[in-house]
Amino acid sequence: MNKMVRVDTRRGTVRVERCSDQELRWGGRNLIAKLLLREVPPACDPIGLYNKLIISGGLLGDTILATAGRLSIGGKSPLTGGAKESSVGGEAGRKMARLGIKAVILEDAPADFTPRVLFISKKECRLFEMPDLGRFVVSETFRKLRERFGDEAGLMCIGPAGEMRLSAASLAVQGEGGQVRLAGRGGLGAVLGAKGIKAVVFDDREAKPAELYDAKKMREVSRDFSRILLQDPKTENRHKYGTPAVLSLCNELGILPTRNFSAGRFERAEDISGETIANLIKTRGGEARRGLPCIRGCVIRCANVFADAQGRKTVASIQYENIALLGANLNIGDIDDVAELNHLCNEAGIDAIEAGAAIGVAMEAGVLAFGDAEGAKDLLRQVGQDTPLGRIIGSGVYITGKVFGARRVPAVKGQAMPAYDPRALKGIGVTYVTSPMGADHTAGNALETAGAVDPLGTQGQVEASRRLQLRAAILDSLGLCLFVRPAFVKAPDLFGRMLQARYGWDLTFEDVQRIGLDVLETEREFNARAGVSEDFFDVPEFMREEPLPPRNSVYDIPLKEMQRVWNVKPPKGVF
Amino acid sequence: MNKMVRVDTRRGTVRVERCSDQELRWGGRNLIAKLLLREVPPACDPIGLYNKLIISGGLLGDTILATAGRLSIGGKSPLTGGAKESSVGGEAGRKMARLGIKAVILEDAPADFTPRVLFISKKECRLFEMPDLGRFVVSETFRKLRERFGDEAGLMCIGPAGEMRLSAASLAVQGEGGQVRLAGRGGLGAVLGAKGIKAVVFDDREAKPAELYDAKKMREVSRDFSRILLQDPKTENRHKYGTPAVLSLCNELGILPTRNFSAGRFERAEDISGETIANLIKTRGGEARRGLPCIRGCVIRCANVFADAQGRKTVASIQYENIALLGANLNIGDIDDVAELNHLCNEAGIDAIEAGAAIGVAMEAGVLAFGDAEGAKDLLRQVGQDTPLGRIIGSGVYITGKVFGARRVPAVKGQAMPAYDPRALKGIGVTYVTSPMGADHTAGNALETAGAVDPLGTQGQVEASRRLQLRAAILDSLGLCLFVRPAFVKAPDLFGRMLQARYGWDLTFEDVQRIGLDVLETEREFNARAGVSEDFFDVPEFMREEPLPPRNSVYDIPLKEMQRVWNVKPPKGVF
Repeated sequence: MNKMVRVDTRRGTVRVERCSDQELRWGGRNLIAKLLLREVPPACDPIGLYNKLIISGGLLGDTILATAGRLSIGGKSPLTGGAKESSVGGEAGRKMARLGIKAVILEDAPADFTPRVLFISKKECRLFEMPDLGRFVVSETFRKLRERFGDEAGLMCIGPAGEMRLSAASLAVQGEGGQVRLAGRGGLGAVLGAKGIKAVVFDDREAKPAELYDAKKMREVSRDFSRILLQDPKTENRHKYGTPAVLSLCNELGILPTRNFSAGRFERAEDISGETIANLIKTRGGEARRGLPCIRGCVIRCANVFADAQGRKTVASIQYENIALLGANLNIGDIDDVAELNHLCNEAGIDAIEAGAAIGVAMEAGVLAFGDAEGAKDLLRQVGQDTPLGRIIGSGVYITGKVFGARRVPAVKGQAMPAYDPRALKGIGVTYVTSPMGADHTAGNALETAGAVDPLGTQGQVEASRRLQLRAAILDSLGLCLFVRPAFVKAPDLFGRMLQARYGWDLTFEDVQRIGLDVLETEREFNARAGVSEDFFDVPEFMREEPLPPRNSVYDIPLKEMQRVWNVKPPKGVF
Repeated sequence: MNKMVRVDTRRGTVRVERCSDQELRWGGRNLIAKLLLREVPPACDPIGLYNKLIISGGLLGDTILATAGRLSIGGKSPLTGGAKESSVGGEAGRKMARLGIKAVILEDAPADFTPRVLFISKKECRLFEMPDLGRFVVSETFRKLRERFGDEAGLMCIGPAGEMRLSAASLAVQGEGGQVRLAGRGGLGAVLGAKGIKAVVFDDREAKPAELYDAKKMREVSRDFSRILLQDPKTENRHKYGTPAVLSLCNELGILPTRNFSAGRFERAEDISGETIANLIKTRGGEARRGLPCIRGCVIRCANVFADAQGRKTVASIQYENIALLGANLNIGDIDDVAELNHLCNEAGIDAIEAGAAIGVAMEAGVLAFGDAEGAKDLLRQVGQDTPLGRIIGSGVYITGKVFGARRVPAVKGQAMPAYDPRALKGIGVTYVTSPMGADHTAGNALETAGAVDPLGTQGQVEASRRLQLRAAILDSLGLCLFVRPAFVKAPDLFGRMLQARYGWDLTFEDVQRIGLDVLETEREFNARAGVSEDFFDVPEFMREEPLPPRNSVYDIPLKEMQRVWNVKPPKGVF
């Protein structure tokens, strides 16, 4: 991966550049942060001429390592106004890596949207129009692209929401078994839409595998890595239940967002739990499956295909955060309704977390009743239908809150809170407030430390969040999944060994940690210049005022205490 | 004016405080800035529990000086997120001053909106419910209040938009001849709505005139002041044509916003000009009038009552900025249409500048056609009808732009640009970008310097803006109108003399200037802590890219150059 593809989206020209020595040391989230700080004016309009949409694989994206090949999508976020990286699985990442491309950088913007496809193969990189794709939903877009580019192409696209430049628009990447993997957070689909690009296609048919520094060592470290992952009981659990496995735990902890974050436990949690989903997948059969990888070769295999009673695919993969926000948060306890809501988000190309949070606020504002599943589906259909209400919801929870004059808006830095109410899992509140990403569980999810650190207490939360944020930044830069945590705990030296085998670099684990720190510092610098540093945002006021049943706790870590996160001592020992 | 009324709007209690010695030195915009910095957490939700809505007359509000008695409304703005002061005429200000009240401070917030009235007289200050006022338009609210509180009460209220906490909601104050004077900018109507208060009533029947330090000197300085104002040719012009007088000039300069700021000259400018309006007022007769004061005793008398062909009042007073934004900016050239649009904004209680800019963006987005006056009226009616589209428009141009994925959004810091395109009047661009108020012509209008400083050039604009911003800050703190400029030019010592006669303070003109500096520094400090300092905002990107016909200039003062505004040498000589 020593090339960068730069596209002038106004003129429609494509240029391939060789990476500088410095750029070769960067990948994924790290590369995105560096390019943003170097090339994007921090105060620019996210959907304007000066923002850039950056697609970059991680440093290990072209290896056989389990989970490697995740793709980072980045740019200045339409939601937070700050640096944004959203990591996504699916097949595109590895194909891009196989083509030797470290990053695709989309620059400038055309005046209007005409659907165009960026096609990248070993032989050519070009941009061309496919006007018949205009306003196509995601599944139809993939179908058309598949027809034209064949079964082996790596596909990425936006739905109508991205074309409409709505702030909650996501990017979709296709994965195994018809999976739609979403780079959901931050509204980066709107940035791709602003560049006048509907889809990106990677054709790696004539590409050769990357030349590794030491292929033998890579096989060894890969074997060790997979073994550690497979030995961990959580991996087995994920294989069985996928991410919905945690729903019952979150309900028990009292952090499951219910009726616009007014409770942390949902009466019908069992009906939408991981166990219920796994059972339905088993009993309904047909297209339903579980234990799928999102990237070929992954040993964790947490993905699934959820099917309706007739065994027809509804949504793949169905995930915890989406179930929580579109289910409990809307007082909807029928998993088939939830699956359809999730599907509708995917089709319109909007982040299901933003959408669920936005509809929750709309329900509280009286637009529709809590529990009205058909009404919620109608709202999501309206996104693609370009109605005012559809546009409001598609703009995410912050804008929805503004338009409805709402005061109970579960967001930090303009971005919706994921499925972990920070009043009863306080460490994640530190992440929501201090992460350069805004409210984002993938930036450092304290659920993991709930066993070691009292989730209702204030002690140790800042330190835990720091540790988790660092790890996320590292993994997002290597192109690995957050679920490889067991390796961090049991064999942290593995990561240096991976980079050694791939590049010949001689890195200790402390050096690897420095990659994470560098990412966070770079993003924070961009955000400081953009006016969205962690100095200006707290959890929503209602979370400091309203106790959350059933734990009846409020959020009580002072803002000043949270702001210490970058000054506390590095945590001792392993991650 | 030595009392402050504090209202706990959650508990419904009212407390009267005596001002400290320090507070006695502050008034109007100055007092608001100081209280915001002292009492309001900068990162708070503008419509949440911690923001305060502050009503304060200026230091000279209880004198007979011409224009004295303007009222400052302030708080953290729902649009800009920063300190906001909006100055308004009408009768309430002077009555509040006669009651000896320096400020009314509305704190905390009830959970829901039930229309309440804050009643303040010599004998009592209390809050009580008037549920039948709910969702009443402004004119109906005033009619009901008048019935109940009599002809002499000073009235202030919000329309449905404020109750709905929409970000572009204004506050209305009643003035002579049925005038509706608006504290329009910044969305402070939403803050009053968030406090659960529909109206504020000042009953000064048993109040006595203020005791002045030197009544004889006050009469002298008042006479000198009025003479200077009356001698100035602009005053005569304002008396005849009101603020619409400048429309023809702005059209000639090429700065009249036309079709969502895509041109600076409007083909039908003559049909909506000050001269046309003055003629219609004369020929139509009936309720139509011109040359009215907005506060009794004002010698400038720039207000008017505009009437339809049957002589029935449409809107009072009709002003340049509203005509420009609701007329040329929407490609509407029929003054009766424009007057009705203005009336509809006043009835809903939204800022006509925000509304005109928002509808312009909606027109460009294809929601309705440019020039569709009936469609525009329908949109404004929808604000009070609580439709999604009405709520979008009522949230102002920034939110409208986000919802419609627009890139040509005429706003700075989330607030709509008034009727002066900065591409051909570059000094006002400096004000839009660097004023703590965001895009606001009343914060420092470079139209005035267009004769002395080339409006298309970049030289001297920063210095001119600084000077104008200082003057605005001074006048907003004294409670005087911006139109008293001639006194600044011809007899700047008058202002020290005024304060001397009122309070016995011994102030040079340099001391008076320091009041202005103090205001701006205090507001900037609040904004810096709120994350909306002038470091993070520029004119919209399209204004740096698209030449503005007919002058075909782009905005080309670099952001860095504008940011020098607070470091340039104080301008020499008079203001």
